[in-house]
Amino acid sequence: MKTINFKPIGIIHSPFKKPEDMPIQPAAADGVYGSVELLPEYIEGLQDVNGFSHIYLIYHFHLSHDYNLKVIPFLDNTHRGLFSTRAPRRPNPIGLSIVKLVKIKENIIEIENVDIIDGTPLIDIKPYVPEMDAPENCKIGWLTNHRSEIKKLKSDKRFTK
Amino acid sequence: MKTINFKPIGIIHSPFKKPEDMPIQPAAADGVYGSVELLPEYIEGLQDVNGFSHIYLIYHFHLSHDYNLKVIPFLDNTHRGLFSTRAPRRPNPIGLSIVKLVKIKENIIEIENVDIIDGTPLIDIKPYVPEMDAPENCKIGWLTNHRSEIKKLKSDKRFTK
Repeated sequence: MKTINFKPIGIIHSPFKKPEDMPIQPAAADGVYGSVELLPEYIEGLQDVNGFSHIYLIYHFHLSHDYNLKVIPFLDNTHRGLFSTRAPRRPNPIGLSIVKLVKIKENIIEIENVDIIDGTPLIDIKPYVPEMDAPENCKIGWLTNHRSEIKKLKSDKRFTK
Repeated sequence: MKTINFKPIGIIHSPFKKPEDMPIQPAAADGVYGSVELLPEYIEGLQDVNGFSHIYLIYHFHLSHDYNLKVIPFLDNTHRGLFSTRAPRRPNPIGLSIVKLVKIKENIIEIENVDIIDGTPLIDIKPYVPEMDAPENCKIGWLTNHRSEIKKLKSDKRFTK
């Protein structure tokens, strides 16, 4: 199968300068502000985006250069199949985050709930639409017993910000 | 900025052989079955995935070779900024779908709610976790007045399948 070539359309800025500073998962990034600097040539495509409260950012885990098919994920102490986790080290190191849109000014999108490292190359922006993107009655496998920890983490972060 | 090179990790199979057969958006793909054929070298990474009811598929819109920064989206008759739409013709033609996981057997993942064309190259699989992926109090911009149409479409499809 042919290689797929993507060209960054912008850069994501955040307070996280090193991987070890990062929130360990998106829910822990409540209240963290950052921005997307879109390359000026794409500005026209941002029209109407400001009507959405949340957007998907699809980006390159550019610091990730290798992977294992079994990983011990955050919140667990057992090896799990890589595709059942959101670990950044993947065969194709591609990241997906839903962030809160704060404001757009020219080619700069101010965002909140950022769990992305500063300087990350942006691949795409899509609007988040609950009617399409929020299925009901979900099962979450090995994470089931960690539900409360996901929520607790979120709260802890709120208290410390 | 450097080009990003991804290598397909599998192929998505669906009943849709041509773009014109496709459901025009994911909510319209209720009850449509398909499968993911993962390259055998990645099988180990599928462990634990079967505990999740829904997974993200990230894939290459391989038939899309150009784009406009303003498009008239489905459900509308006004030009909208590309990044406020889910149109497949994008600067980086990358697709994102949440599908229902039916069953995994070796390297084959049977899936439901497939809005993807047959033969699409797969880039990544991630578990869908509502606690991380379903923000509340969302605004959906130009789609606001089309909410009922999104839901209606879903129903129409149910009646015809």
